[in-house]
Amino acid sequence: MSDNAPLIVAIEGGGTKFVCGIGTDPHNILDTARIDTTTPHDTLENVSHWISKMKVAHGPIAAIGIGTFGPVDLNRDSETYGYITTTPKPHWQQTDVVTFFKNRFKVPVGFDTDVNAAVLAEYLWGAGQGMDPLIYITVGTGVGGGVLVNGQLLHGLLHPEIGHLIVPPPHNSLAIQREGQCPFHRSCVEGYVCGPSIAKRWGVKADALPPDHPAWEEVADVMGYALMNLTLTLAPKRIILGGGVMEQPHLIPLIQGKLMQHMNGYLSVPQLSHDIERFIVKPGLGGRSGLLGSMALGRMAIANKAL
Amino acid sequence: MSDNAPLIVAIEGGGTKFVCGIGTDPHNILDTARIDTTTPHDTLENVSHWISKMKVAHGPIAAIGIGTFGPVDLNRDSETYGYITTTPKPHWQQTDVVTFFKNRFKVPVGFDTDVNAAVLAEYLWGAGQGMDPLIYITVGTGVGGGVLVNGQLLHGLLHPEIGHLIVPPPHNSLAIQREGQCPFHRSCVEGYVCGPSIAKRWGVKADALPPDHPAWEEVADVMGYALMNLTLTLAPKRIILGGGVMEQPHLIPLIQGKLMQHMNGYLSVPQLSHDIERFIVKPGLGGRSGLLGSMALGRMAIANKAL
Repeated sequence: MSDNAPLIVAIEGGGTKFVCGIGTDPHNILDTARIDTTTPHDTLENVSHWISKMKVAHGPIAAIGIGTFGPVDLNRDSETYGYITTTPKPHWQQTDVVTFFKNRFKVPVGFDTDVNAAVLAEYLWGAGQGMDPLIYITVGTGVGGGVLVNGQLLHGLLHPEIGHLIVPPPHNSLAIQREGQCPFHRSCVEGYVCGPSIAKRWGVKADALPPDHPAWEEVADVMGYALMNLTLTLAPKRIILGGGVMEQPHLIPLIQGKLMQHMNGYLSVPQLSHDIERFIVKPGLGGRSGLLGSMALGRMAIANKAL
Repeated sequence: MSDNAPLIVAIEGGGTKFVCGIGTDPHNILDTARIDTTTPHDTLENVSHWISKMKVAHGPIAAIGIGTFGPVDLNRDSETYGYITTTPKPHWQQTDVVTFFKNRFKVPVGFDTDVNAAVLAEYLWGAGQGMDPLIYITVGTGVGGGVLVNGQLLHGLLHPEIGHLIVPPPHNSLAIQREGQCPFHRSCVEGYVCGPSIAKRWGVKADALPPDHPAWEEVADVMGYALMNLTLTLAPKRIILGGGVMEQPHLIPLIQGKLMQHMNGYLSVPQLSHDIERFIVKPGLGGRSGLLGSMALGRMAIANKAL
């Protein structure tokens, strides 16, 4: 902690709440707030009001970092850079987030997906230090993933949309609704394993299912296929699994087993055999990855360069 | 062309032949050779003999670049860096390629997979210029892929192994052998769409199947799923499809259609609708991507840095 370190506002924009923080680094967070996600206008105004209060309390801010639900436009040459774009969330389509905060506070604004923010924080301070390529996946009300590769967050045509990876359907499913629940895809990861999909397919909320319920083996099966495809594509050095569904303590070992079973010995590396517990891991920052990653995005906006 | 440009030996190591070239850049290749792939000892000695002849004819060489079949060890901190490792190809397991050429010729040796070499060449001089992330996939006797992302080739735990991506099995297949033909995986891309898999599943060699044969729709279906998963993971700006099977002129349009059908409108970008013909393309360098990419690997070995 240094009195001279620049003061950053971090905003983790989620579907139900915007989590905000102000500080200089993960060990020096001066204040936090949770603001309900309502309409874009009211939500952004409420966040803005909180930032103004923080400036009075703590002094001038150097930058704002925002990690938000998506899809978002991260192409700096695009007219809609900094927008939340085609989200199914009511009212939020084509919301210009970056310009709002830039105009209001006249400071650099860093912007990315919530999951890219999370992978960045885990790389800098959490369970992914020194691990490049690194993947962070959240399984909760939806499934999303962030990727850091060759020292930078992964953008391109858009950004990773790992929740919609196509996998084989679970074998001989015992679910009430055997089919995947995604409105776009018959057989994608999110349609089988996000919280609402589990609830619809088994008729019971995910957190009410006992650890020996067959739903969990299916979740692990599908996640095992997703991690297999990610491993074969990105050759990650580590994959971090976060989000509400992953808080079931028995789930990560089940997924590790399924990943090895699906790979069937194809790649002979310790990470896919005796070292799998260090390959597929929980977040090192608990639920704070998104907020701390947003702080890192703010820092990077000051430097205006990659890591 | 410059008389002062460093002279590079490029080696594309394949399962049936090693294609070698010597020159300074793609427009100045002075000589080429094809050397049968037999045992590692004989093959590397024959390549070495050819290089020695070339030095007599053209003068001293500055570097050697090698793109080879894999899996290979690309981790510079590993004791087996520069090896072809667990390949199923008889005799070639644990073959130290880099040390052989370094000791013999005392020049920097660049080393990567054949498909990473190909993606590099297409990025520098072919159909992928300015496109980062970029993917190159070859569909021939096997299926492999190279990836360039954030300005560098993708390495990590290992390197991409795109041929073994898991996909849903083709729906209501009419094939004689409905199941995938990969010895490791029940339902992976290579097990359905590489040349030998097509021949086994349909009882006819791929290049003897007429364009309206149902096999092609299945190949396109499986490739469409593979490209969907790659798009959702790497967010590539372009995907290049090469290799013998892709020389069927009707196949790329079929695959473009299947990719859009599988995505089902999930990402609203022109590359997945009216611009798909510029998103999924043929190689710009024809069959020369691997050799020219190996030359680029040699150049990079001189600079000892990324692109």
